[in-house]
This record gives sequence, structure tokens and C-alpha cells, in this order.
Amino acid sequence: MGARVQIVEMGPRDGLQNEKVSVSVEARIAFVEALVAAGLTTCEVGAFVSPKAIPQMVGSDQVLRAAGDLDGEFHVLVPNEKGYEAAIAAGAKVVSVFASASEGFSRANINCSIAESIERFKPVLARARADGVKVRGYVSCVLGCPFDGEVKPSAVAEVAKTLSDLGCYEISLGDTIGVGTPAKARAMLRAVGGDVPPAKLAMHFHDTYGQALANLYAGMEEGVFVIDSAAGGLGGCPYAPGATGNVATEDVVYMLEGMGIATGVDMDKLLAATNRMSALLGRPPVSRVASALNAKRAKATKA
Amino acid sequence: MGARVQIVEMGPRDGLQNEKVSVSVEARIAFVEALVAAGLTTCEVGAFVSPKAIPQMVGSDQVLRAAGDLDGEFHVLVPNEKGYEAAIAAGAKVVSVFASASEGFSRANINCSIAESIERFKPVLARARADGVKVRGYVSCVLGCPFDGEVKPSAVAEVAKTLSDLGCYEISLGDTIGVGTPAKARAMLRAVGGDVPPAKLAMHFHDTYGQALANLYAGMEEGVFVIDSAAGGLGGCPYAPGATGNVATEDVVYMLEGMGIATGVDMDKLLAATNRMSALLGRPPVSRVASALNAKRAKATKA
Repeated sequence: MGARVQIVEMGPRDGLQNEKVSVSVEARIAFVEALVAAGLTTCEVGAFVSPKAIPQMVGSDQVLRAAGDLDGEFHVLVPNEKGYEAAIAAGAKVVSVFASASEGFSRANINCSIAESIERFKPVLARARADGVKVRGYVSCVLGCPFDGEVKPSAVAEVAKTLSDLGCYEISLGDTIGVGTPAKARAMLRAVGGDVPPAKLAMHFHDTYGQALANLYAGMEEGVFVIDSAAGGLGGCPYAPGATGNVATEDVVYMLEGMGIATGVDMDKLLAATNRMSALLGRPPVSRVASALNAKRAKATKA
Repeated sequence: MGARVQIVEMGPRDGLQNEKVSVSVEARIAFVEALVAAGLTTCEVGAFVSPKAIPQMVGSDQVLRAAGDLDGEFHVLVPNEKGYEAAIAAGAKVVSVFASASEGFSRANINCSIAESIERFKPVLARARADGVKVRGYVSCVLGCPFDGEVKPSAVAEVAKTLSDLGCYEISLGDTIGVGTPAKARAMLRAVGGDVPPAKLAMHFHDTYGQALANLYAGMEEGVFVIDSAAGGLGGCPYAPGATGNVATEDVVYMLEGMGIATGVDMDKLLAATNRMSALLGRPPVSRVASALNAKRAKATKA
């Protein structure tokens, strides 16, 4: 299996945007610095979205500017031209756009159809091309939708192809509500891979039902080797409160390293970053690896 | 992939034997009844071990006798002839013996070498054969040892073959400390499968580092279709306090059903059984699926 896997760290953006507690800009900058120091040099650090809708992402311009001093590739989410402009003003070199694979989620999340959402970010893609800015495309609900239920692999493939044709260098396929299982993940990736080369695909799986690692492993068997994850498994889902969020970076790193795939991530430093954020949020990390390592250390300290 | 998977429920034995709280015999009987009602009709219900060493399993004779009234196959762990005799007196039709794949764990756990431990249960196997009692063999530390570190697949294969040659109908391969990853799990199963037919193997993986489902999926690709799991992910590890225990039955069922493999398990009833035990233990279940479903219900009730 692939000797090289790319991890795209989501903690500061997808991780924090759904947390109840809004984390200060200073703490988010420190979080990004700690993640990069741990070796997570490709990292989504913020979103240029409505401060009313997502107050957790206020000050993303400051976080992105601070990240500019670090060695790495930093992404920010932009929903529209206004967001794009603000991102560019703050020095963005990579931006992300998003569309849903299900009409129900598109309506609930951004109040328009899939086709309308794609129309909305076409100007973003055109300007990014002119500006020499890379665009990453997210597709959400690729393995199920909280409103529509089952989502057909062909529907995912269609949106993914559209994003790719419009110039996205990579398409990140999101199991937004974490309902996927390995066989479905493979079938979906195979369908999308028929239209977009697997080398251009990323897996963005949430761990709501504990399936994410199994799905990632299955996806790697389909030749997809870019993985989105969040330190400590940050990021709940607004449609399943109390449930876990993004697959934890610690758990992904543990699996990959155990398979002989070097990630370049320093687990001790990553765990320290996770624990500091966890203290700010006032709850223990949901990462299994973080829990096990923390328990092991507590025991060693006690003994 | 295999249309038929057999789940062997471990909650009442491996699940509860490592919990800090000793659960009453009555509550354990109710737990077994609830699990069987949920469709988990192959279930390990107790252990005939030293009450000093493992007080949690005191009264296993009563639990086994009560299970005798139910429709299913009920296992009990026996470490030696004395335990075997007590199990038979309580009506046991299936007993389990155990050996370690690592010398360090064997010494720490049962204070003898692997070879000595096998000598110790040879009389058990001889008597079981004469009595028409089925014997299941556990091999522990198949993917790593808390004392010896790495465990060679060949060492696991040797112990598994010995158990099989001695008459065990099934060999359950335990990742006791949950350190395995998919590639290692496959390599181990392939090595063991060279000596013992995969149809006679079971996977008994703990979820300490969140790898269990990925390892199970990888193992199914090697043709192993018997899975040990515990309701709610019960059962910590004495060597990693605070860490999760057996892979959760809920999480396994979710994955299998999502893959189109019918388990015959009623998730609602299983969750109810888990939640009742969880209340007795005074901590929420560690199963991701149980957490997500409980959160979903709490929200629905609130709304």
C-alpha cells in the first residue's frame, strides 16, 4: 500500500468551527504553531464566513497572517467572492470551496441547490486562477445525508467532476455525518475515481460512528492517499450533538505509522497541542490514541 | 466479502472482568438476558477463576446456570482443571482456555512460561474431549505485548497451531492491548492461517488505540469471519487504565450491517443493554455508535 500519505490538518478550521466554545484568535494561532511544529505542515487554519453564522471563525484573517510566518501550506475556507477577497487580502495562497452531494444538505446548510452553490463559487475559481491561487474543493455528505439519507456514488462523482473541471487541484470527499462503512466508502471512491484521478482525491471522514479509520484503510486500497483529519478528533456535528467530529489526527498517524507509512508527525508534540486545546474547550479529547497515551502517562506519573 | 460473520459477545466476561466496579450476579444475569434478546446468542458469560484475583467474576456458576434457560451458546473461561470442574458442574457446554503469544505477558499474567501454560490446560482439553465439551482457545498479545513489545507472527502461529492440534474448535486471536494496525493484523492472520484454517480463527481485538474496526476489516479480507466484541466497548486494560477495552459490539454491528452483512442484532435492544450496564458502572459507554445514538436521542427528546 501507498508509501506516502498526505495528511491535511483540519483542527483549527473544521475542528473548531463546530465547537460550542469560541476559542480566541491568540489561542488559535498558538494551536496552528503547535500543529506545524508537530509536523502537520498542511493545515486549514480558518474560514472567511459570516461572523454571525460561525462566530468561532472570527479573526481568521489574523490567524492566516500569523501562519504566513510559518513553514507550511495554509488553507482557508471561502464560501463566496466576498470571503475570497478577504482571504486574499490576508495573504491566502490556497482557498477551499464547498458543495454538497445531497440537495437536502445543500438547502439546509447554505440555503440553495447544489447547482446554485456551484454557480456561486464559479467567480471565485475564475479569480483564483487569474491570481495564481490554488483552490481545493470539498464535497459534503458523500456517504449519507442527515436529510436525504442515502447518497448515490454517481451523485458524488458528478459534483466531484464539476469541481475538478472548474480547476480544483484536489477534491476532498466528506463523510460529513460519519455514517459510511468500508464497502460503501470503496464503492463511492471507485465511482468518483472513474471521473477524477484518485491522485486528485482526498478523504475527509468524520468518526461519528467510529468507522473512519476502517473507511480510510478501505479507501487507501482504492488508491486514495490524502487524508483530512483534526487533532484530538475536534469538531462535533451540529446534527448529532455529543457525537465525535473529524477523525482524530492521532488515530490516523498511529494507523499509518503502524503500517510502515511515515507521516513526519511527532506524536508527543501533537498530543501536547491537542491537550492544550482540550483544556481550553473544557473536555477531554475524543481521540482514542490521545486517551490511551494520556492514561498511560497519568499512570507513569502516579507510579 | 463474507456474507456471514459470527459475533461472539464478550461483555459479561472480558468486558466486566477488568471493570473497577464489581457487578452483582443478578445484574450480570439480566445483562446476559438482554444481550441474548438483542440477538447476541453466542456469549461468554463468566470465568471460573480465583475470586481473589478476579472478584468481578464471582458467581459465574450462577450466571451460567441462568443462561442455561436461554436459547444460545454460552462460553466460560477456565484457567485449569479446578475451573473446568466447577464449570461443568454448572452445566458448561463450551469452555475457553488461554495462552499468550509472548513470554513476558504469560509470566506477568499467569506466572508461568507459554509452554507451562499449555501443559496446564492439556488435562482440561483431554477431559473436555471425553465429556463432549467444546473448547475455544484464546491467544493473547498477538499484535504486541506490554512487556516484550513486538510479537512475531510466527510466535502467534505456533501457539495457535498447538491449541488447534490439542482439539480447540476455534482459536481466538487477541490484540490484548489494542496496538495492532491493519497491515500487521493481516500479516499475523496470514501467518496463522498457514497452520490453522482461517475458518477456525476468530479476531479478538481491543480498541485501545482506535484501530480495532480497521483491523477487523483488514482481517475479513484475509478470510476471517468470527469477531469477538463487547457491548458498549466494556473492559479496560489493566496496563492502560482509562483506555478503551474490547471493540464495541455496536461499532462492529454498524460496520457489518453497513457492508450489507446481516448480524441478526437489534441495535435498539443492544443499546438499551449497554446503557443499563453503563449506569451500573457509573460511566458512559465508550462505543462510538452508542455515544452517537444516545446523543441523537437526547436531542430528539429535547426537541
